[in-house]
Amino acid sequence: MSAYPKEPDLSAYMQTVGRNARRASRELARASTAVKNAVLQALADAMARDRVRLLDANREDLEHARAAGLDSALLDRLTLTDAGIDAMADGVRQIAALPDPVGEITDLKMQPSGIQVGRMRVPLGVVGIIYESRPNVTADAAALCLKSGNAVILRGGSEAWRSNQAIAGCLRAALVQSGLPETAAQVIETTDRTAVGHLITMPEWVDVIVPRGGRGLIERIAGEARVPVIKHLDGVCHVYLDGAADPDKAMRIAINAKTQRYGTCNTMETLLVDAAVADRLLPELGRRFEQAGVVLRGCSRACALVPGMEAATEMDWTAEYLAPILAVRVVDGLDAAIDHINSYGSGHTDAIVTQDYSRAQRFVREVDASSVMVNASTRFADGYEYGLGAEIGISTDKFHARGPVGLEGLTSLKWVVLGDGHIRT
Amino acid sequence: MSAYPKEPDLSAYMQTVGRNARRASRELARASTAVKNAVLQALADAMARDRVRLLDANREDLEHARAAGLDSALLDRLTLTDAGIDAMADGVRQIAALPDPVGEITDLKMQPSGIQVGRMRVPLGVVGIIYESRPNVTADAAALCLKSGNAVILRGGSEAWRSNQAIAGCLRAALVQSGLPETAAQVIETTDRTAVGHLITMPEWVDVIVPRGGRGLIERIAGEARVPVIKHLDGVCHVYLDGAADPDKAMRIAINAKTQRYGTCNTMETLLVDAAVADRLLPELGRRFEQAGVVLRGCSRACALVPGMEAATEMDWTAEYLAPILAVRVVDGLDAAIDHINSYGSGHTDAIVTQDYSRAQRFVREVDASSVMVNASTRFADGYEYGLGAEIGISTDKFHARGPVGLEGLTSLKWVVLGDGHIRT
Repeated sequence: MSAYPKEPDLSAYMQTVGRNARRASRELARASTAVKNAVLQALADAMARDRVRLLDANREDLEHARAAGLDSALLDRLTLTDAGIDAMADGVRQIAALPDPVGEITDLKMQPSGIQVGRMRVPLGVVGIIYESRPNVTADAAALCLKSGNAVILRGGSEAWRSNQAIAGCLRAALVQSGLPETAAQVIETTDRTAVGHLITMPEWVDVIVPRGGRGLIERIAGEARVPVIKHLDGVCHVYLDGAADPDKAMRIAINAKTQRYGTCNTMETLLVDAAVADRLLPELGRRFEQAGVVLRGCSRACALVPGMEAATEMDWTAEYLAPILAVRVVDGLDAAIDHINSYGSGHTDAIVTQDYSRAQRFVREVDASSVMVNASTRFADGYEYGLGAEIGISTDKFHARGPVGLEGLTSLKWVVLGDGHIRT
Repeated sequence: MSAYPKEPDLSAYMQTVGRNARRASRELARASTAVKNAVLQALADAMARDRVRLLDANREDLEHARAAGLDSALLDRLTLTDAGIDAMADGVRQIAALPDPVGEITDLKMQPSGIQVGRMRVPLGVVGIIYESRPNVTADAAALCLKSGNAVILRGGSEAWRSNQAIAGCLRAALVQSGLPETAAQVIETTDRTAVGHLITMPEWVDVIVPRGGRGLIERIAGEARVPVIKHLDGVCHVYLDGAADPDKAMRIAINAKTQRYGTCNTMETLLVDAAVADRLLPELGRRFEQAGVVLRGCSRACALVPGMEAATEMDWTAEYLAPILAVRVVDGLDAAIDHINSYGSGHTDAIVTQDYSRAQRFVREVDASSVMVNASTRFADGYEYGLGAEIGISTDKFHARGPVGLEGLTSLKWVVLGDGHIRT
């Protein structure tokens, strides 16, 4: 028997998955908040109850992954532990506790014709999630989609196949127990790589794709998809230390934005320093970054102020290092900082440190990024910190959802018109 | 001399147009409401002042179009009159009078970490408009984009080339007069058809495409675009006459939704009638539609009630006739009506006529369309009737903007984080 199942007719299988998801999405759309919350509670309970089966499936995945020579970072992401299962179940329970975004009607206003016009928040329909090795995404993403009234099709990495199928079993049990169709959350059963190609080109069955993974995966999906994609490419985040910055806040925020974690998309990758204060701030910052083990690559003016700083090249201004490396540039004031960010940035998260009210206002308005910050570390750019409760991803696109995407990003608004026999004349 | 200019290097030309638009979009994004309104007033004034030049250019377009044998409907759409120029200028002044959507910060809330998090409404950046023969779209779409703080690239039909270039002259004059870059609103100067292919595949310079025209144009653009598209495909709109409908309202709305205008996307194309009242409503409706010259194509149950009704085929349930033809189906109550609409509809606009509160609620919630209506004619689905003031188009997609798209649909929300030296721990 081969390690993973293949479908003899993949296209027909994916069409069936899509059609079933579309049908289930109608029931999800009209499900009450109580029913949706009951599904999530049942899912959390089922995962806790089926703990041994989940750990066994995961152990098998890990054995195959080790035999295939996968690296330790990937093995780490793939591993489910007892505590990890508890965290996964807790995460699902937290999503159950969030307010239901669906059904709210806003701005219902009387128009001159006599009709009332408003907007109702509704699910998108069917969400496709494509992700790599972390099996906890299966529970987490399914919970966010179901809570927002969407059916979901999940496609995880083949290395996590057994773990994901075990979680899929919990999902099906929870749905059936709550009286919803078990096709409301489907985990693709084949590991055939071309399944992804089908999933992203079925606009009749799938309303949006959310890819979660490395840049290669996301670029491929964005390039080939025939349905909208909520995506996140680079996180080239900037902190600009303005001439009117409080020196203590400047130091604290610059150090935190870089060193609190190196591998996250909201970590600072380029530090911009106003020429007016560079000689006062940069030497001390250079020492602190050196102590923290961060390699600095600077423009010529920055290098003149920090002994041992490497010379940056043009490529450093667009680099997402995800490592203890930082690009540093001295700029001539706010306009030059905004120009640099809008030219080289990735539209993720950018911060200014300043005590000057007008400059803070201009930075907030003029920097073109999904998150703009004043006197705060870029590391705050995250669904939990923003009060969304959980996020399905971070979008660096401007369309539909921007920045951390929570339940609301998985919904849309439809127009509601209430009349009393009104006709147009 | 050839009739229209061709670019020797189209790709380089389009790249230049795109780059200039991106640069101009930065200035538009920070322009004050007063400056944006001044541009629109100046545009309206310039069109009124240059009336003779506009009419001359349009006359030349019409001569070429007649010589090329274009049909009368197209000639009609192409024609600018004195009154048409006044209407165009008035439309632009009305857009100037609308509230500026940009800059508003909403939901600024304190988070447990101490940071304040909110969202600011910002322009999308650069909007590409692709349209066919109506030259008034040039002024109208440019005004909506500029008011919402976006740069715009306009690509009209070649048959309206001289008219559009004349309006482009007014646009440039208005921008320069107001101190904004004249590249904030560019009308493509070549009629080379491949320019569209470039425009829709430059995500680095263009943030969204709005196609306005026939289905062929929109399908081609949706299929080939590498940037988001705000689009409208079919308008297969339904009216469902429920068993609990008030008979007078039912008659009035059904007749109005079909006969007020035949060629518009919000015209009813299928009438659904609850079996419980079909025998009371359909014979009389049949007579009235016959008087109005509407051909009816019905299911077998409908045909049994209306003498002379043609038999409908499966294709009639998905037809957008845009003509005095109406499909009619008798259904067994609300569930069957919702099923029919969600299966055969195009997600544009659907209405229920009922006095039953619970059924109205279910219809509003469960019908998957950009506009759902209770006791009102589908003909109301329109930006002006909804109080948007003007619309750039109607979207039948669920993503980003749905239904009539006004200024807000040309904007996005970015996250704003205000701290006071806050770092993440």
